Amino acid sequence: MTEPALSELSLEDRAALGSGADFWTTKAIGAVPSLVLTDGPHGVRRQTGATDHLGLAGSEPATCFPPAVGLGQSWDPDLVHRVGEALGREARALRVDVLLGPGVNIKRDPRCGRNFEYLSEDPVVTGVLGAAWVAGVQSVGVGTSLKHFALNNAETDRMRSSSDIDPRPMHEIYLRAFAHIVRTARPWTVMCSYNRINGVYAAENHWLLTELLRGTWGFDGAVVSDWGAVRDRVAAVRAGLDLEMPGTGTAADAEVVAAVRAGALSQDAVDRAASAVAGLARRVHAGRENAVGVDLDAHHRLAREAAARSIVLLKNDAELLPLTPGTSIAVLGAFAQSPRYQGGGSSHVNPTRVDIPVDEIRSQAGTEAVAFAPGFTTDGSGDATALRDEAVRAAADAEVAVLFLGLGDDQESEGFDREHIEIPSDQQELVSAVMQVQPRTVVVLAHGGVLRLAPIAEVVPAILDGALLGQAGGGAIADVLFGAVNPSGRLTETVPVRLQDCPSYLDFPGENSHVRYGEGIHVGYRGYDARGSDVTFPFGHGLSYTDFDHTDLSVTADETGVDVEITVTNTGDRAGREVVQVYVTTTDSRVTRPPRELKGFATTSLLEPGVSERVSIRIDRSDLAYWDVRRDDWTVEDGDYGVAVGASSRDLRVTDTVHIVGDDDAVPITWQSTLAEALADPVIGKAIAGMLPAGPSEGGSAMGTDLVTIMGSMPLDRLKRFGMASDALDDLLATDRPGRG
Amino acid sequence: MTEPALSELSLEDRAALGSGADFWTTKAIGAVPSLVLTDGPHGVRRQTGATDHLGLAGSEPATCFPPAVGLGQSWDPDLVHRVGEALGREARALRVDVLLGPGVNIKRDPRCGRNFEYLSEDPVVTGVLGAAWVAGVQSVGVGTSLKHFALNNAETDRMRSSSDIDPRPMHEIYLRAFAHIVRTARPWTVMCSYNRINGVYAAENHWLLTELLRGTWGFDGAVVSDWGAVRDRVAAVRAGLDLEMPGTGTAADAEVVAAVRAGALSQDAVDRAASAVAGLARRVHAGRENAVGVDLDAHHRLAREAAARSIVLLKNDAELLPLTPGTSIAVLGAFAQSPRYQGGGSSHVNPTRVDIPVDEIRSQAGTEAVAFAPGFTTDGSGDATALRDEAVRAAADAEVAVLFLGLGDDQESEGFDREHIEIPSDQQELVSAVMQVQPRTVVVLAHGGVLRLAPIAEVVPAILDGALLGQAGGGAIADVLFGAVNPSGRLTETVPVRLQDCPSYLDFPGENSHVRYGEGIHVGYRGYDARGSDVTFPFGHGLSYTDFDHTDLSVTADETGVDVEITVTNTGDRAGREVVQVYVTTTDSRVTRPPRELKGFATTSLLEPGVSERVSIRIDRSDLAYWDVRRDDWTVEDGDYGVAVGASSRDLRVTDTVHIVGDDDAVPITWQSTLAEALADPVIGKAIAGMLPAGPSEGGSAMGTDLVTIMGSMPLDRLKRFGMASDALDDLLATDRPGRG
Repeated sequence: MTEPALSELSLEDRAALGSGADFWTTKAIGAVPSLVLTDGPHGVRRQTGATDHLGLAGSEPATCFPPAVGLGQSWDPDLVHRVGEALGREARALRVDVLLGPGVNIKRDPRCGRNFEYLSEDPVVTGVLGAAWVAGVQSVGVGTSLKHFALNNAETDRMRSSSDIDPRPMHEIYLRAFAHIVRTARPWTVMCSYNRINGVYAAENHWLLTELLRGTWGFDGAVVSDWGAVRDRVAAVRAGLDLEMPGTGTAADAEVVAAVRAGALSQDAVDRAASAVAGLARRVHAGRENAVGVDLDAHHRLAREAAARSIVLLKNDAELLPLTPGTSIAVLGAFAQSPRYQGGGSSHVNPTRVDIPVDEIRSQAGTEAVAFAPGFTTDGSGDATALRDEAVRAAADAEVAVLFLGLGDDQESEGFDREHIEIPSDQQELVSAVMQVQPRTVVVLAHGGVLRLAPIAEVVPAILDGALLGQAGGGAIADVLFGAVNPSGRLTETVPVRLQDCPSYLDFPGENSHVRYGEGIHVGYRGYDARGSDVTFPFGHGLSYTDFDHTDLSVTADETGVDVEITVTNTGDRAGREVVQVYVTTTDSRVTRPPRELKGFATTSLLEPGVSERVSIRIDRSDLAYWDVRRDDWTVEDGDYGVAVGASSRDLRVTDTVHIVGDDDAVPITWQSTLAEALADPVIGKAIAGMLPAGPSEGGSAMGTDLVTIMGSMPLDRLKRFGMASDALDDLLATDRPGRG
Repeated sequence: MTEPALSELSLEDRAALGSGADFWTTKAIGAVPSLVLTDGPHGVRRQTGATDHLGLAGSEPATCFPPAVGLGQSWDPDLVHRVGEALGREARALRVDVLLGPGVNIKRDPRCGRNFEYLSEDPVVTGVLGAAWVAGVQSVGVGTSLKHFALNNAETDRMRSSSDIDPRPMHEIYLRAFAHIVRTARPWTVMCSYNRINGVYAAENHWLLTELLRGTWGFDGAVVSDWGAVRDRVAAVRAGLDLEMPGTGTAADAEVVAAVRAGALSQDAVDRAASAVAGLARRVHAGRENAVGVDLDAHHRLAREAAARSIVLLKNDAELLPLTPGTSIAVLGAFAQSPRYQGGGSSHVNPTRVDIPVDEIRSQAGTEAVAFAPGFTTDGSGDATALRDEAVRAAADAEVAVLFLGLGDDQESEGFDREHIEIPSDQQELVSAVMQVQPRTVVVLAHGGVLRLAPIAEVVPAILDGALLGQAGGGAIADVLFGAVNPSGRLTETVPVRLQDCPSYLDFPGENSHVRYGEGIHVGYRGYDARGSDVTFPFGHGLSYTDFDHTDLSVTADETGVDVEITVTNTGDRAGREVVQVYVTTTDSRVTRPPRELKGFATTSLLEPGVSERVSIRIDRSDLAYWDVRRDDWTVEDGDYGVAVGASSRDLRVTDTVHIVGDDDAVPITWQSTLAEALADPVIGKAIAGMLPAGPSEGGSAMGTDLVTIMGSMPLDRLKRFGMASDALDDLLATDRPGRG
């Protein structure tokens, strides 16, 4: 044991370090101080009053930044880093040592109730932005907790459900962002999830917590349980869990001690856990030295900047947006006055203030002529017809209608999954009614999970997707509506035409405590593209009030990766930012590959009209690899890779090809190899060819094809049984003997 | 050991009974005679000359009946039984004891190269027709071999590939037909497949061959290996294999003896295998007594009748068909002269004769005016433009064009899978060119696997789907074209708009020797319906030259099943047959169910115009069950079931509802049950409710929903750790203690 703080401690004390003192703190034992861990991720949820049983009652005021569903749409790690720093400062000011975030689970299905806490359907977007968040928070000496590790992609039955998944999607899609963040941003803690993975609880999963996380990825922090994820503390400590949260009394600690005494648990495992908690305390101690002030006004301004950068302009026919100040406007929809700006559940923040969209619009409209009508209620109260009629009259009387639509708090939340992705029907009816009197209508959307937009996208000329924007969203929406901010957000999830088109549609959220990840690697745009499904708005989509040209693509490979450079020119008449997205296509792979995969991205600076910027994006060689189940390892295949720079996954602007020298991915020829595999081997192929019989006699052959086509898939051990491969091969082959594959 | 023939045999002899003497025969040992097993299923492939290494060289002439892809389209078990009888008679005449068939693997993906040997994408069609085939063959004292057991749904890497599948699709889709046939038709042998199932070779799969097949289903015959499916004879005998085929010398028998002597294999297993082979020999011996004559002319007539019943009229705009004798006809397409009527591989039959379509059309046309032009070649030889131009001229000069399209022998076969399902491009170009000059064009299709028909179905007014029709297909096509036979065939597979719509599209044929059955139970129409995908022609589709009304649906349930009765009336002006299809919909299931599933079907007799027939269809209660993974057993759910009688899966004509009293499917409440499950229990629910805390205090709650919605998914053991469930529950719950789920 290398942890000096522990050398004086008894086994009982070491075991006790491995569980919380109460809902949000750990125990002070010996030289190890008590630590405070509380929910994030998009704001600090510090409960200081009496703690309720679920830790869900009121908390101290804190800035509510855009939740991940919004912030992710910025595609900007620098911005995310700045938000992280601000979160860290607030955490420190509220005496919080570890802020529980970021949530980097992949958005497998739009129905997942917790998608608003996650970043994207894509692991590269998730990994890059998640790493920026961790680095930002930790830069001010506050810890993070990378969660929920792993494969927690639905809320239904989340404390028992087993995510049943094959190795390729597990590594290539679901673990990739975790690996990137652990390696590059070094979070102080990782939080194991509630669910099982291929039948084994994350908290009891030795492969996950020890072999992969600590062994392969080199994680050097503490593994914390999600709150209530531990069923069997002894099994969890054995697997690699360090800290059970929240505290559940002394019984579990005693079980750990008893297990060590009975020889059922190694002392080393207990020491590893205690040492990890003590190590975390040491980091915390250093962090606490780091006195920081908090300027809540500045944080609100940052929240507004981040919110504006999070907004995606989905559609803007006839340049309806930005609005000209002085225009008479009908602001419609209950969310304009009671904004939906964050999600429900453990991440719920008590905001320091909340910008009201209609007020912010009024303040920027430069005119008194801003009417408001709620149009509907989110709880179904009131007279729906009267509300609608009032809104329609207001729309008819104005030059432009701005219609705030979305989901209420009771329609999506942590804790349950949605059953559909429709906009509520009363809101859809309102859109139809308003469009009949006011063709100049802008829809502004608030939602945590993807909505089906096909019905409104067909009729409404302009749509702003705000997702969830945090407490300053109201001002940010006004900034974008009037052009104070030129929108540069991009979708991090595909908007399908129909929920049924979603790759995971047929097995979400699972049944009988099992979820089969049947779509495999074909998650999100990878699946829509593989099936060639129409989508309403593709992954990466987002318009601007200006236009960009992409020219002079350069792609060069070296031993450690690929450099992509491109020149982006603002060819329009307003300053704006472009998000450059690099998609890679693998040709002639020996396994199924998605048609294209995002491998890198970058946001330009704010480019004035006519100005160009040379953008460089580095793709690490490891990001070109696929998970090779034959070798149980990553493999970069040899060959030509297509590299496309696009404005979305379906708007590729310029393409090039680069040759990559692959890894040596040959596997030894054994008696279980097929004839075709053996024939392809330069040495063994020759020996085998000489042993083969002639084909069937001419005429009357039962086969329409040649002998090797038929026999190529026959393993050598079977050829041997048929007398067509001799023992002489034994010396040439790897040692597995026939019939023992 | 109960087998008298074995009592005198040494261990060596008993072991030797378990493997073949050569390619097609078993060993004569003691009182057990040598047996002959040869390929079917749609004709007897009796090799009498020198056997080549793969057993694929020429064979004795035998009637080539329609392969399963064709015959299945009859949806008529009586017809299939008659074909089975004829096959049995020919087998007996050729001194064959066991005819290797039927092939009852589910057509999971249209690309599977061996789909032409299988019956349907649906297990009920497959099970009913497969059972009729077995009963027919065995009725004349010849054995059958139900194959390929199991989960052999692709040709790629078939000797190693693991079919990775969850319990529900395995039982509900892929094993259902095998179970039905074993139980109702009692095949003398079952043939285990080449592939692995969830990692374990079928030949070495004790669960499959012993627990399920013999134990649960009561199989009393011999388990034979597919030819070359055994890698490790000892492991196979241990698992339940009785007979390794073909013979591979004496080494494997010696391994069995050695394993018994070493205590690695039980003597009982060897005796079971020897006993099964001896039992098969006893059945064969009785069968050989059963002298039957063969009338090859009668068999050819039966082959023609079966072929005509197999043809599906997919489209018939403006009643272009049937053709009027005397019409001048241009017969086009190479397949009109060189018909494609069976598939390649082990099932290839040396036919007694072959009807040539163009000749048969000429003989029925009642006129000399039948021109022929090949239009294309199947091997790409010849001048494509000249061939096309000649065909177009012929079409222009005639009153009607009949265009024979399809796949050649080299485009599909046992041994490899297709990569696409397109009609060859030169044939599609021919269709376009012909349609420009001759709108009255009929397409006749020959193919083993499903073809994408959207392009031709959009432009061609009439399409006959012949699939593969056997040696008498030419006459049968003429019979249908001219109306001597009114078509009554129905599709046994969905024809998708695009291959990408196929439920299994993303993981067929698998990679790295694994196929993930990711679409689960959503195979074929179940998947297209679940996703609401458009299809070109739905499962069960097939037109007639007359019309049928469906009236007076009656649905009554009793303790063992459901009786469905309906009156079918021929309302048109020609005699015809209707196939009545019964689809069942389960509402409010606790698991995902397909939107509808075929549960029964029946073919009417040939109804004269104006004539009605009352059709009765019995649905066994067991066919309403789903596989309940909680109980590892079948469960019939309580509730209302929708029953629809339709002309296809998407043409439901009349519907009714029937209430079914369900099985008792309650599972005990344990510490691993969730709060919601416990609350639903009448006794335990009360006890639990009293232990729950109040919800979070008003105002500032992090949740938009009530406490039980959030906590409902929490297992009781976790509630207990949180102090919210007391030990007092221990007495009420099943015995699993907390934390040991």
